[in-house]
Amino acid sequence: MSSARNQPKQPKRFLGRYSEPLPTNNLNEEEDDFPEFEPFEDDATPRGVAPSGGSLSVQNVDMLQQRNKPKHFTSEFDIENLVVRRGQEFMMQVTFNRPLADDDDFQVEFLIGSNPTASKGSLVVVTFGTRAAGPWPGQILEHQGESVILGITPTASAIVGKFRTYVAIVEGGGMQRTKRDTSTDLYLLFNAWCAEDAVFLADNSERSEYVLNEHGVIYRGSLGSVINRDWVYGQFEKGVLDACIYILDASRMPIYDRGDIIKIVRKGSAMINSQDDSGVLVGNWSEDYSMGQSPTSWTGSVRILLQYANTGVPISYAQCWVYAGVFNTFLRALGIPSRVVTTFNSAHDNTGNLKTDLIFKEDGTPDERNTRDSIWNYHCWNEVWIARQDLPAGFGGWQVVDATPQETSDGLFRCGPSSVKAIKEGLLCHQYDAGFVFAEVNSDLVFHKRDRYGTLTPYRVETDHIGLAVYTKALSGSGHVDVISNYKYPEGSAQDKATMARAEEYGCERDHSETPDSQLTVSVKAEPVLLGQDVSLQVNFTNRGQTVRTIKAHLAGSIVFYTGVTSSRFKDHNFTVTVPGEQSESWDQVMGPGHGTRSCDQVMGPGHGTRSWDQEYSPHLGSQVSLSFIVTGKSDDDSVTAIKVLNLLTPKLTVKLHGDYQVQHMMYVNVSFTNPFSFALENVYLAMEGPGMISYRTRYYR
Amino acid sequence: MSSARNQPKQPKRFLGRYSEPLPTNNLNEEEDDFPEFEPFEDDATPRGVAPSGGSLSVQNVDMLQQRNKPKHFTSEFDIENLVVRRGQEFMMQVTFNRPLADDDDFQVEFLIGSNPTASKGSLVVVTFGTRAAGPWPGQILEHQGESVILGITPTASAIVGKFRTYVAIVEGGGMQRTKRDTSTDLYLLFNAWCAEDAVFLADNSERSEYVLNEHGVIYRGSLGSVINRDWVYGQFEKGVLDACIYILDASRMPIYDRGDIIKIVRKGSAMINSQDDSGVLVGNWSEDYSMGQSPTSWTGSVRILLQYANTGVPISYAQCWVYAGVFNTFLRALGIPSRVVTTFNSAHDNTGNLKTDLIFKEDGTPDERNTRDSIWNYHCWNEVWIARQDLPAGFGGWQVVDATPQETSDGLFRCGPSSVKAIKEGLLCHQYDAGFVFAEVNSDLVFHKRDRYGTLTPYRVETDHIGLAVYTKALSGSGHVDVISNYKYPEGSAQDKATMARAEEYGCERDHSETPDSQLTVSVKAEPVLLGQDVSLQVNFTNRGQTVRTIKAHLAGSIVFYTGVTSSRFKDHNFTVTVPGEQSESWDQVMGPGHGTRSCDQVMGPGHGTRSWDQEYSPHLGSQVSLSFIVTGKSDDDSVTAIKVLNLLTPKLTVKLHGDYQVQHMMYVNVSFTNPFSFALENVYLAMEGPGMISYRTRYYR
Repeated sequence: MSSARNQPKQPKRFLGRYSEPLPTNNLNEEEDDFPEFEPFEDDATPRGVAPSGGSLSVQNVDMLQQRNKPKHFTSEFDIENLVVRRGQEFMMQVTFNRPLADDDDFQVEFLIGSNPTASKGSLVVVTFGTRAAGPWPGQILEHQGESVILGITPTASAIVGKFRTYVAIVEGGGMQRTKRDTSTDLYLLFNAWCAEDAVFLADNSERSEYVLNEHGVIYRGSLGSVINRDWVYGQFEKGVLDACIYILDASRMPIYDRGDIIKIVRKGSAMINSQDDSGVLVGNWSEDYSMGQSPTSWTGSVRILLQYANTGVPISYAQCWVYAGVFNTFLRALGIPSRVVTTFNSAHDNTGNLKTDLIFKEDGTPDERNTRDSIWNYHCWNEVWIARQDLPAGFGGWQVVDATPQETSDGLFRCGPSSVKAIKEGLLCHQYDAGFVFAEVNSDLVFHKRDRYGTLTPYRVETDHIGLAVYTKALSGSGHVDVISNYKYPEGSAQDKATMARAEEYGCERDHSETPDSQLTVSVKAEPVLLGQDVSLQVNFTNRGQTVRTIKAHLAGSIVFYTGVTSSRFKDHNFTVTVPGEQSESWDQVMGPGHGTRSCDQVMGPGHGTRSWDQEYSPHLGSQVSLSFIVTGKSDDDSVTAIKVLNLLTPKLTVKLHGDYQVQHMMYVNVSFTNPFSFALENVYLAMEGPGMISYRTRYYR
Repeated sequence: MSSARNQPKQPKRFLGRYSEPLPTNNLNEEEDDFPEFEPFEDDATPRGVAPSGGSLSVQNVDMLQQRNKPKHFTSEFDIENLVVRRGQEFMMQVTFNRPLADDDDFQVEFLIGSNPTASKGSLVVVTFGTRAAGPWPGQILEHQGESVILGITPTASAIVGKFRTYVAIVEGGGMQRTKRDTSTDLYLLFNAWCAEDAVFLADNSERSEYVLNEHGVIYRGSLGSVINRDWVYGQFEKGVLDACIYILDASRMPIYDRGDIIKIVRKGSAMINSQDDSGVLVGNWSEDYSMGQSPTSWTGSVRILLQYANTGVPISYAQCWVYAGVFNTFLRALGIPSRVVTTFNSAHDNTGNLKTDLIFKEDGTPDERNTRDSIWNYHCWNEVWIARQDLPAGFGGWQVVDATPQETSDGLFRCGPSSVKAIKEGLLCHQYDAGFVFAEVNSDLVFHKRDRYGTLTPYRVETDHIGLAVYTKALSGSGHVDVISNYKYPEGSAQDKATMARAEEYGCERDHSETPDSQLTVSVKAEPVLLGQDVSLQVNFTNRGQTVRTIKAHLAGSIVFYTGVTSSRFKDHNFTVTVPGEQSESWDQVMGPGHGTRSCDQVMGPGHGTRSWDQEYSPHLGSQVSLSFIVTGKSDDDSVTAIKVLNLLTPKLTVKLHGDYQVQHMMYVNVSFTNPFSFALENVYLAMEGPGMISYRTRYYR
């Protein structure tokens, strides 16, 4: 009987399912990769037979950081180890105890994760002669006495992460290996400079911006009152690359999958938010940030990533621009070309169809109880540049990925990659989440009247309200470019109609109700003003008919979150306007910031008391400063509606450097700020950060 | 100042993000849908003005179960409420206090989930005259004195689940509603009989099998020794439909999404396993089931589903056929045509490419440490019949969904729906998880030799080992049909090559190594035998060359789990075979079940002791009874390998009914069983179940 002779050692929980647990840990892998001397199982050579030049041994291994980094565009990384990009040769210097002889045989081995294996690419053997080895070509570039300079080219689809490096000499009936030396660990990244890599980006200035730039601008607010927010991505800062690899480890992503750009970015979009997987950032759209830090107080990604990697605990709190900013750091650190974009008037459609349904009561007031959809004033996501080998030809290039948790994206808190080109063509069959992203930029706004029986009747469809613009930072300077034409054909064009028809074929539902062709139109205008100043509202009714019309109108004014959700209604006002045939008529309102200097009805101030400003302002204004005005008008059977969202501008900080500024010398910075209010500010925090200069710090002013 | 006048009531955690929490609960929704009398906000009618026939009120609402159920094929449901299928008219009878007059106005309302809303389809208003209402058409079919018979047709895309029913009379300046009455609750299902429904299946015998049959057969074992396992789906059993809706509630799936067949089946594949989401079944591929019930001991789905719905705690334990069986019940209960299929030799490829890498040491023994992939002897999944509106035309029909947790499926424990037609064509760009399923049936088997330097050299590629057959129960009787031709073109055909090329275009990696063209071949044959009988193994070497060859051969015999993972190696045997030119040579082995009646070297018994059989059998045989034999042969530079997996057959139970069997009378069942061993069995459990007759029970024999 010979049963159970060779029973393999197996952790109990994997028994029968896997032969070994799938490796999912890069940073904290096992350290005992090899015995220092590994005898050949099959070897018949007597031990101790040395090659002709005498026994060979390794004296030193040098990863040649100064020579490699400029060629791999990795000089900026503040890290002790060599960082290179895949698909491109790097050099290393091995110094032996004597010059190499012809019959010497050695190899270099790169290992990642536990139990590395050649068939899965987590163990790579590189040889420098005729002996067969793994997929990374090796060559001896130079002999320098006892040293050789080796050239090694990782494949363009290699696993990305931190490899352990060994040099092994074949001698004495076995393999004599170098000891584990963490200083020779090698970081391998995606390579936008390599034509064979799925992230290849041909243009040099684009690579400089989308892979190498540590600074960015994220756009917020609403179109017409856009707010620029500087953001420090800091992908080269000390600890950040390790933190990004830690995120993949924390997600338990198999090491074997980490060369696949699609899987990496999809996993990233899941892991940057804390839902499902205890990922990086906890969302909070309330006004209560007392258990963490307010989303508006972050100045960059570095502190968030380092704290997450140090504690393993999700960081509080984020809203969309924080998710997008941190995700961008993750992507650029790993070498993936990426940018943050901001879509203005982004539909958040809970059923993922092409209708954003706004419901009004019969008297013209917004029916908030029955309105489920919302329009985000703006929404930030990321674009990554990927050749999509998993899709038919033509869908490579920019891809949407979104880390902000939006519950309807395939039932999980992640989104993308979704080809921008597929979205433009309405080809929603192309994974991932194309239908969801398409709705965000293309939904129709459907205005319904809800009658007393609970029945909805659509009375107006606006096809040009959603997806007004998509801003991203320009390649040069800090200005923006609008890339909406990547996402959409011009509204109403033949191509636009074909796109919408295709989207419907793929299951996106649209509203095709016949809505009455009204002779009345209404518009609302308001110029952006600074917080604390008067808001002027101009409502304009136009009568295209022949006869005079008397319009019963209603103005609803609300403070809204940037997600379009109402925080508080502060104004409900009925008025009547008479418009002669073929004429227009305006109705104006001026609203001050409070303090009651005008008549009660004409003045709509932000209200009373907020933590960060003072006791006079509305608790509902909070850190989000959007006002939404909805005007409805009714005359006979005609109903018209207009919506205007206004972002109050916040005062700007002015930063001035003074004195001489020299390397290694103190520099003086003067920060000034004009209080727009007629009262004094208390409890003010100033936050500052300069990558490579000063780390994040705050200062408190009473 | 008018601030904060209309501040909406909102749970704090949703503030700013949603106007209200997304409803995700069907079974335990709020009960206070409406006030019993809801005055019109805008009404000017003086209260108490009755219609011409006097005040109208509802006396009774009857859902007409006996008339509706046969037409909707729902008579079998053991449930107190009416169950109907969408896209098809059903009837209900409303009895008033008097016959209806012409100016009476009433409506029927169907509600699902909390805060139902018309724009999302969770509140449906049905009217019976000219007044506009929701999307479900209504008509009065019959007037019978004070009663009317109403005909109502839910749309073919309506939300599926349990609706609350109200009748409202418009009178007295408001709506007078019936009270909540759970007996009028209505279950709405998918409808395979309705051409507009995405699950439409034209053939009547297919609908009878795939929607209505409560019994099935699941195939296990290996091709040549297939084991039929009866399975009781029991989708109509008491409590099962509610349990299936409970699963969707437990997943927190938004009510609004529950009319979408794609989302429902994808969510189901995630929820039937416990990973990620505390779903129904805990997997266990070890041999230790002491914390639950052994996967082989289940006879059907009912007990599992009821226990999960009652406790909310995942049930222990499952392997693939249990997942597939329970998932099938879930699908059929909701009205989705579905079947369980079994794929023989299914690749489980940890990197999702088209290579299943088997690694051998230089001496020919399997290198289990470095082999990461495994071939499941069989793997069960489900097919659902869906028109895929989300894909281009041509990919409707059967779709793979798989609830067995396989970690590489898009990083999550769910899989599909994946179009079988897309898999056949290699069009892996079509969501969901097509590449993963494609690899399961199409991987190439690549045999590598691992040299002493750790380098792998492929020496043989077998393209016809994986995906041998796909069995499912035939429409009539309990026999099987092989539907492999739905998944694959014939091996080696021009279409097969085109399919493989397409799959590679979409990123599936194949091995194109030049492997030596060997003049030697080897095969292993063994006839299936009953557990406890002798196993005869015949190894055959063929020499196609001219010269005599001496082959150094190795036989490795292992007990393997059905997942292909080795439990224990019980045999490592070296032998030499000499084969003359252009001839074949056989080498035979006979292995008995133990007890040492033959010479030690010739006898490979299953070993010593197992819980469920007796003290003599191997602890490693356990509940899975597969033997794997691998023969490698080496002659000069030629290497050949053959693999044979043999499933030992377990003894059959014979069930005989005797006496007369009449409705409402006791029935006698005789169960017999022949012990194949030469020793007595102890601690035997017999499990039995008969849907609609007897619920699951076990009997213990010492």
